[in-house]
This record gives sequence, structure tokens and C-alpha cells, in this order.
Amino acid sequence: MSYFTFDESRPMDFIAIGRLCIDLNANEIHRPMEETRTFTKYVGGSPANITIAVAKLGKKSGFIGRVSDDQHGRFITNYLQERGIDTSCVITDKSGTVTGLAFTEIKSPTECSILMYRDNVADLKLEPADVSEEYIKNAKAIMISGTALAASPSREAVLKAVDLARKNGTVVFFDIDYRPYTWKSREEVGIYCSLVAEKSDVILGGREEFDLLEEPYGPLQNDDQATADRWFAHHAQIVLVKRGGDGSTAFTKDGQSFKGTTFPANVVKTFGAGDSFAGAFIYGLMNGWDIARCQQFGAASASIVVSSHSCSDAMPSAEEIQAVIDKHTTTV
Amino acid sequence: MSYFTFDESRPMDFIAIGRLCIDLNANEIHRPMEETRTFTKYVGGSPANITIAVAKLGKKSGFIGRVSDDQHGRFITNYLQERGIDTSCVITDKSGTVTGLAFTEIKSPTECSILMYRDNVADLKLEPADVSEEYIKNAKAIMISGTALAASPSREAVLKAVDLARKNGTVVFFDIDYRPYTWKSREEVGIYCSLVAEKSDVILGGREEFDLLEEPYGPLQNDDQATADRWFAHHAQIVLVKRGGDGSTAFTKDGQSFKGTTFPANVVKTFGAGDSFAGAFIYGLMNGWDIARCQQFGAASASIVVSSHSCSDAMPSAEEIQAVIDKHTTTV
Amino acid sequence: MSYFTFDESRPMDFIAIGRLCIDLNANEIHRPMEETRTFTKYVGGSPANITIAVAKLGKKSGFIGRVSDDQHGRFITNYLQERGIDTSCVITDKSGTVTGLAFTEIKSPTECSILMYRDNVADLKLEPADVSEEYIKNAKAIMISGTALAASPSREAVLKAVDLARKNGTVVFFDIDYRPYTWKSREEVGIYCSLVAEKSDVILGGREEFDLLEEPYGPLQNDDQATADRWFAHHAQIVLVKRGGDGSTAFTKDGQSFKGTTFPANVVKTFGAGDSFAGAFIYGLMNGWDIARCQQFGAASASIVVSSHSCSDAMPSAEEIQAVIDKHTTTV
Amino acid sequence: MSYFTFDESRPMDFIAIGRLCIDLNANEIHRPMEETRTFTKYVGGSPANITIAVAKLGKKSGFIGRVSDDQHGRFITNYLQERGIDTSCVITDKSGTVTGLAFTEIKSPTECSILMYRDNVADLKLEPADVSEEYIKNAKAIMISGTALAASPSREAVLKAVDLARKNGTVVFFDIDYRPYTWKSREEVGIYCSLVAEKSDVILGGREEFDLLEEPYGPLQNDDQATADRWFAHHAQIVLVKRGGDGSTAFTKDGQSFKGTTFPANVVKTFGAGDSFAGAFIYGLMNGWDIARCQQFGAASASIVVSSHSCSDAMPSAEEIQAVIDKHTTTV
Repeated sequence: MSYFTFDESRPMDFIAIGRLCIDLNANEIHRPMEETRTFTKYVGGSPANITIAVAKLGKKSGFIGRVSDDQHGRFITNYLQERGIDTSCVITDKSGTVTGLAFTEIKSPTECSILMYRDNVADLKLEPADVSEEYIKNAKAIMISGTALAASPSREAVLKAVDLARKNGTVVFFDIDYRPYTWKSREEVGIYCSLVAEKSDVILGGREEFDLLEEPYGPLQNDDQATADRWFAHHAQIVLVKRGGDGSTAFTKDGQSFKGTTFPANVVKTFGAGDSFAGAFIYGLMNGWDIARCQQFGAASASIVVSSHSCSDAMPSAEEIQAVIDKHTTTV
Repeated sequence: MSYFTFDESRPMDFIAIGRLCIDLNANEIHRPMEETRTFTKYVGGSPANITIAVAKLGKKSGFIGRVSDDQHGRFITNYLQERGIDTSCVITDKSGTVTGLAFTEIKSPTECSILMYRDNVADLKLEPADVSEEYIKNAKAIMISGTALAASPSREAVLKAVDLARKNGTVVFFDIDYRPYTWKSREEVGIYCSLVAEKSDVILGGREEFDLLEEPYGPLQNDDQATADRWFAHHAQIVLVKRGGDGSTAFTKDGQSFKGTTFPANVVKTFGAGDSFAGAFIYGLMNGWDIARCQQFGAASASIVVSSHSCSDAMPSAEEIQAVIDKHTTTV
Repeated sequence: MSYFTFDESRPMDFIAIGRLCIDLNANEIHRPMEETRTFTKYVGGSPANITIAVAKLGKKSGFIGRVSDDQHGRFITNYLQERGIDTSCVITDKSGTVTGLAFTEIKSPTECSILMYRDNVADLKLEPADVSEEYIKNAKAIMISGTALAASPSREAVLKAVDLARKNGTVVFFDIDYRPYTWKSREEVGIYCSLVAEKSDVILGGREEFDLLEEPYGPLQNDDQATADRWFAHHAQIVLVKRGGDGSTAFTKDGQSFKGTTFPANVVKTFGAGDSFAGAFIYGLMNGWDIARCQQFGAASASIVVSSHSCSDAMPSAEEIQAVIDKHTTTV
Repeated sequence: MSYFTFDESRPMDFIAIGRLCIDLNANEIHRPMEETRTFTKYVGGSPANITIAVAKLGKKSGFIGRVSDDQHGRFITNYLQERGIDTSCVITDKSGTVTGLAFTEIKSPTECSILMYRDNVADLKLEPADVSEEYIKNAKAIMISGTALAASPSREAVLKAVDLARKNGTVVFFDIDYRPYTWKSREEVGIYCSLVAEKSDVILGGREEFDLLEEPYGPLQNDDQATADRWFAHHAQIVLVKRGGDGSTAFTKDGQSFKGTTFPANVVKTFGAGDSFAGAFIYGLMNGWDIARCQQFGAASASIVVSSHSCSDAMPSAEEIQAVIDKHTTTV
């Protein structure tokens, strides 16, 4: 069954709003970053990665965001354009901001860490006036990343975008994407992410992320079904609880739940697993696939990305994903 | 007919959240403040004034807010207690804040101005953790003042309070109470006040205030009925559009509207008119009166306060209000 | 003997730089401020008071500072002009600042306290560009108040003014005037006040204030003569250590010291004692009086001001001061 | 002749205070940074580079500064230690700061630019309390970099260090090192750098940098000799005006001036020229060489560094510098 309708008359399939930044991945892996000397530059940021994934899968995609007025900002905009992503709403911020950076350290497949530069970043300068009703109205779906709620004026821009999406029948995907930096308090996280979750059609998050949303409003229940029901009482149709290496469970408003598994991978690092899953899962939903197939497609995509050095560059095509599925299905 | 139910089993009738400050009214009136030399001190702030009005009318009232840890903060808390208002949720802020001040200048009955001190004020330091679900659950109704949304963490505390009120069936009154200071942009005003308006049972504001809420989401219609319908699509039951000296119009979800008038007054200053109206109007609603009678009661209360030097001190009793109504009704 | 030369060809006798604010003195004295209801407004701020004192004594005076663009700012400028003080370098700050306030509470003659409003104040927005070399060059002497060093850009404006005074042979008076608010750390106080003290001709301060200046540079000696010698090694000619009710000791570069006494007074409050002393002491120095006579004149002035409700309004004339001296000298 | 005495009994030859950061040099040169993909990491920051240069030349060196509590901070501290530089006063800042970054773009030998990350950097969090009198007293000389004056509390730490150096007879080198970022206004630059220049023995800067110091105090003269005389009136013994590719002129208090030249180089980029010059020039002064020889040594060192990809890593040994001098002198 279909949980919501994508308006097929709209020219744009998918847009995202929020963070556009740069990953600097240490080339020398399996050692502390103190001992590395060279880095390779990639476009990064969760909503950027998801958009790149969706675009690679063939959907007409776009982005609403701000980049810095420097070489890093231009690198990002150029990269998106080369990938066929519409950047007409990617604004060059002129206020002296910088691009957010993530230096990644890969000590071992299970010991990865990130050194973030998030002060005075362009992406958080997105303003409500940057959000065009026309752009949202012309897209079938919009992806909100919780990180964009971490500070003003990006926070207000996102709150406005969500309202415009609801008003215009654009399907709202919400990835909680909690990162402790930037936020001033845990309660802020819960309060603002809840405001967006109330107005979203599909919500993706880990168990701890959903707990954050419930914290300000009473004792935690730590119960996935109760969490899903909380949001079904608003506009949600699908609530997907991610469990990292243990797969995910998707709950639907009609009372079903679907447990997804993972595919074997030669893991280089775990970064990008969530974004690649989300991109492929959304792609499936937009194709009208059933939930279980969407989850399988997402998991296969993730298995490819965790085997690579980068996130954005490694986002696979539908054929590559299908090949993984076929390989592991035929062996059964 | 009754538009909503006040849970009569609850011990507290009415609570407000937000601004507690001090008015310093020039004793020498009808001249510029440069030429005045002495001031009299009163408790002020719109939600404080409304609470004082409601308490004077005999309702069991309380307040959620923060005051400065100094003589001004203690003056406010003492004053509320003397008026029988519960201050168990009035917290003394220990972070070095001050009490907001409003120096009022009365050049003539129609030329009044305020010189505000709103930097580093205690009331805007209200935190989400200060908001007790128990307190809200024990009250029949809560009043939200839009000014408390102007800055964090007060903004988040109010957003949390509104959600807890809805969750617990506490009736939500929302007075937009727009003041240009503190807010960073007009769009912020519209975005946050809209989030609260969506969850309110009764919304009070001037035409320009309602326009502010509509601005981020499309071209202005400047149509009171359309404004009312916008909020009736959410939780509102009553939308009251105030027109200063021209009275007010109350719209109800069942499609009716009621035009209220004003009473003659020997006007000293116009400050406090809105707060005294709101206090008496709410009192009427909580008594189950019909809308027209609530408006009349509010207008009579306002006529008393605008004839006085102070706002809070001048809030009238039910008998005093009724006397005004009787006087002007019998003469007809 | 004369310790420095005032250039008699200059049109202006005395200028000060820094704080211009408002005192709001409780009219009801001998009770906590929580229980007072009315306040009287006066011009305040240590350098303002000293300038008013010097002007009252007949010296041609001026001021370099910023006031807020509101009724309080205009009140201050008007007041200075009425006192014959030149305000051509008193700039109206247009950046949305307020006037600093000091609510004074007089519980008893020995229990006085002040509730300060110092956030976003106009006086600390004084900029280096506001300091005119021409104005300083035309004055015989300039008074620096340490409070103006508490924050940028006022801090830099003062550092510039001191250098321009030295360059142009304008005698530099420095009143340490330490107030704990605004300053970020004790070490900041010592570092910046030392930079000004090194370039001053006359330094006035209490023992604890001089200790603050010595703290960053080694163990405290708590020795007035050592303190004086520290600054004599730079440009100082006179170092005056104030001891409140116990009078003051003036040290001179030629190795002398002078112990000043106090005059009996019917003390209402102790505020303003230091400013009235400083004004009369400076007046004496500018008249070429010997140090002991300057101290006596200062002490007599202080005895008048502590007997009054205000500071600035109460600054006495030379005749009034002399009358106090005569009264107490003839009785001996 | 010798212009000042280095106290030979002291265990440490040279210490610097201020900026420790990281250079990320694009590996792909001769193209815009938008088109580069990999970067190599080096220790950077002008005072760090100078200290590394002096240490490479064999002087016992140390550093007073703060580094971030992360992989970049540890990389810097490790690097200094490997170079034999004392890091007992290099403090790990625990307040959540990051390491300053400089992404360098080399479009051509004459078109180089830097993309800076200077928000919330550890080096500017140096506090007055971090500056140990004992450490300064044990060093023959200290180098101050003007960039460390750009913000508090680093600004106050440096002002304190300079006073302690003067008090203890530690020779003060001052490199104006003006960088427009961080500073709030041009006047601030002039005011604070002047305060340090007044207390310095040797001042190094470009013509525009010296102009900045003179701007707040009167019309610019644009005259190197007048500039030198300005500072000779305080404590300066040598004032060195740098002219980039055109060499430098050193003025001495005894009225002499020395024009230095440059050595031919196969220029990769111009970064690091000034730091390598300063390091070798200071080395010469500390060896008691005459000014002209110091300048020649500095220029030869610079010619080596501009021919390399890095700054810090490329600092040459005395033998390498001498080889350049010999090569170009013998061919004449």
C-alpha cells in the first residue's frame, strides 16, 4: 500500500535543506590523526550526502542552503552541479562565514572519530527569506535534517520550510540527525525536533534520538511502538527506528512493522552508513515500493558506502545496489 | 454556548508565563521625560498585569517566571504574594540578570511613550526545566504572552509549556503582545507566534499583530475573518481582534462574530488598556459568560485603568467594573 | 612647590572622559529598596560628578563621552549645559544603547547599596574616533576614570586619549574608580589600569585599588610608599591613597607625604564622598595650592556632599567649602 | 657595536608567545583551490614558524601558548617537542576551542592566497595567568607577535608578558604581523600595537604596518626614519622596515641605517619569507653579529623557504643558509 502521494506533476522529485560542508578524510588510515599528514577533500553533511545519493539513483534533486563565499563554498556548489543537483537555492553567504569541516580519523573500522569545525559556519546562516514557497511547491518531497535546527536563523528557516511543505502538499522526510555540537541544551533538541516531527510524514532516527524528542514531555518509555504512535497522532505515516549495525525497524500508521537487516561489508569506516541508507530508502518510497524492499535497498547501499574511503563520492547507482542484493540473495 | 471546558476539579484557575518587570511612571505628567525628576515604581509586564487583574477579580492565580536576585526582583515577588498570587513557580534567577524596566512618559493622554530596559533581563532566562508539568496540569487555563518568545531560553520554555498544556487539557490563552525590542527579525515573530497560535484555544491580538503571524507564509489578506479561519483550522475556538479605542471583534469557531464597544473614560494614558481588557474578558470566559458580555466586561475594566496613573495597581474589582457598566447602561 | 605646569594659554581648564549616567535615589530612606516606592533622578557617574564639582568651583570644564539617544541621554546633556559644562564632545550614541542607571538604597548612613544597570550602556560605546586631539590640546588637564577601561571600545578611546594628552602636555589625572561590574577578570583591571597609571601625572585610588594594579606583576607589598614609588618611576608626580572615612595620604615625587583628615558631617549616605573630594582637590592643584590645602579643601567638600541626598546636585561652591573649613578651624 | 645585552646566564635563549596553528597546503599547485583535492598538514603561525627557525639554528627555544584539546593540538605540541622546543608553557585549552587553520592556495608564485579558520581558536584563549614571570626571567629574549593582541584574553596575556620582560631585562622582539581578521577595527590595531612597540627593543614590520601604529595619533608621515625615531624615543634600539621582495632597511638608535638585499630564488610561494627572515635575523643578533650580516643571513634563509612547499618544515640550518650566501658571494 502507499502511505502518501507524491504529486507526479511536479518537476522536482526531491529537495533537501540544511548542511553543506566538507569532509577532510585522513589518507593514512588505521592510526591516530596526530600521525597523519595528508587529507582528501569531499563534500559532506548529512542532507548533502542524502541528496547526492538520491540524485545518483536518478531522481531530479535540489538543495536549499548557504555556502561560504570562498574556495570551499565554490567547491561544494560546483560538485553539486556536476552531479546534476539544482543549486538555484544554494546561496553564497556574504557575511564572512566559513564552510563547516569534518576531519575524519579512522583508527580501525570500529574506532572512527570526527574533529568538527562548526563555528561561524555558512549553513547555519540560512534565513527564512531564503526559503521560497515556489521551490517547495514544485518538489514532490523535502528532507529536513535536525542539525539545521541547532541555531538561528537556520532554525527559523527550517520551521518555515516545514510549514510551507505542509501547506503545499510536499511530503516531509525528517532525519533527526542529532549532533551534540552547536545545540545549547538537550531540551532545545527535543523541543525543536518535536515541532518538526509533528509535521513530518516520515521520521528517521536512532532510539537515543527519539528519546531526546520525548525527554521534555515526560518520563521515557523506551518503546519503539509507543514512539511511533506518538508521531502517528500527528502527521507521520512511517517512523523508522535505526539500530546501526543491527538494521532498522519501520513502523507504519496502519499498525504494521518491518524489521530490516544488513548486508555483509568489508567495513573501512562507519561514517555515511545512515545517509546512504536514507537516500536509497527514500528512493524506494518515491518509486512506490513496499517498505521491506525500501529497507533492503537502503541496507545494500549502506554496505557499499561503509566499504569506501568517502561518503558522498561513494554513493552507489541503483545497478550497484541491486548487484549487492542479487549477490547475497542468490547465495541463499 | 461554551467553546471549551475548564476542568473544575483543578485547584488553580489561571496561570500565566513570562514577563515580570517594573514600571517607573513619571510623577510629573504632561511634559517630556527630560523634564521630569521623580518616578513611582509599579509591578509591570503584560502577563503580570493580566494575572493581577484576574486575581483581583477573585480567581485563584499563579505565575511561571524568573525574577532578578535583587531588590527589584524581591519587590515583584512580594507584590504578587500580597495580591494572593501563587509564586511557587516564580524563580529567582542567580545568573546576574536585572529586572526589565519601563520608564513611562505621559506627554498627553494620546502621546505616551516608554523607555525600555530589556538587556540581560531575568524574565527571558526562564528555562524549559523551570516549567513543571504538574503545575500546568493543576491549572484550568494558562496565558501565554508572545513577548516571552522573543529570545532563548524563555522561547523554549514557552514552547514546552504550550505542549504540556495541550497534553493535559489546560486551556491555552495566547496574547500576541508584540514588542519590537528583543526580537531579531520580523520573520522570527511570525514563525514562533504561529507555532503557539496553532496550539491555542483563544488568541488575542491587534490587526497588525495577526499580520505579523501571516507574513512568512504568503501575501497578506488583511481580513479578520480569514485570520480567524486560519487558526480555527488548528485548535482555536475564539480569535479576538483588538482595535484599540475602536473596541474589538471576537470571532468564534461556530462562525459567529461579536463586535465589542468601549466605555467613555477620562484618559490619563493608554497603557494597560489591553491588559485590563484581557483580564476581565478571560474572567468572563471562565465564568461561562457569553462572548458579548465578556467583551463588555473587558471594555469597562479598560475604561477604569486608562483613567489611572498605574496599570497593575489600578486593576479593578468585579464590583467596580459592574458599576461602570451599570452607570452607562442605565443612562441609555 | 608646583609639581607640574598647567598651560595657562589654553581656553579649557579641565575635561573628563568616560561615564555619564543616572542615579535614581530612593526618596524613602532608612529602609530596604523593596519597600520604597518613589525615586528622584540625578546625573551620576564618577567622572560626571567630578566635572560638575570642578565646574561649580568655577573652572571652565568639558566632557568627552557618549549618551543614549533617548530622554535619559538628553536629560544628562541638558544638565551639563545648564551647569556651563562644554558638551561639544558629548556624542549621542545611535546604536540602540541605554543610559547606565544606579538605583541607590540608603538603609542607614553606613549601609548603602547600589543596584546597577550596566548592560548595553552608551558610555562604554565611546570610540577612539570620538577622541579629538584638538580638544585635548586645548585643555589644561584631563581626568581619566578607570571604569571607562572596563570594556571596548571605550577602553581603546581612553588609551588613545591618554597618549594624546601626554603628547600635547595636558596634565593627566587618573582616578582608578574600580567597580567590579563590567570587567571580565581582576587581571584585566590591573593590566589596563597600570597602562594608564604609567602615563598619569596624578593618581587617586584606595589601597585595594592600588593592589589590583600590582597583582599581575608580583607578590603584593601593601605599602603605600612602595606603591607611590612604582608610579614615580614613570610619569607620576602625586599619588594619593584614599582611606574613606580615615582621610587620605598624598605622596609626592620629591619624597614628601601629606596626611589629610576629614571634617565632621551629619552623614546621610557615603556615595559621592570620593568624587567631591577629587573635584575640590583638583581645583586646589589647578590653583597652585600646596598639597595639604588641597586635601583640606577636598575633605571639606566631601563633608558637605555626604550630608545631602544627591551627589551631583550637592556639589558645593568654593564659598560653601571655605565656610566649612572656617567653621571647624575657628572652633579650634 | 651591540645594541642590547642578552643575559648569558639564562638557560633559555629565545621564547615566543602567541599563535600556534596548522597550515593545510594544497598538494596540487598552480590552480585554484576549488580544483584541488588533497592537502598536507604543517605546523604554522608566524611566532611558531620563527621559533622553529631559531631552534633549527641551534638556539634553546620555548613557547608560551594554548593549543586545542584534540588531534590538531596534540600534533602541534608533538611537533615542537620533536624539534627540541620547550613546551612546558604550551597549555592545552579545555574550553572547547579549535586549532586555527590556514588553507593555502598557490595559483602561481605571485598569486597565493590563504583561507583562514580563526573562529573560537585556542591560541587567542591564552590568559594572563598562563604567563609565568619565572619563565620569562629565565629567557634571554622574547618574541611578541602582533596577532596575539587581536582579541582578549590573549591580548592581556601579551601585555602582561611584555611588562614582565621589561621588568626582568628580557630583550623584547616585536613582529607587528598584522592580519586583518579577528581585529575589530583599524584603530584597535594601532592602539595596542603601539603599547607593545613602546616597550620593545626590536620592532619588525612592513611600511603599512608601521602606518597602522601611527594612524590614531596624527597625520601619516610615511617616512621610515621618522617612524624609527618615534620608537627610539621609547625603548627601541632597532627598527626594521620590511619591503617584501625589495629587502629591508634596519634603523638603529645610534642613527645608522642598513639596507638589506635579497637572494635569488626559485619561488614556489611567498608565504614564510618574513618568518624565516626574522628567525635568522634574530639568530644573528643573539650571536652579536653586526646588523648587515644579520640582514644577509635573514635574506638567505628566506630564499630557501620560498623555494619550498612548506614554511615550518623548510626552516634551514645555519650551514644551509651559509651555503646560499657563499654560493652567491663567490659568484660575484
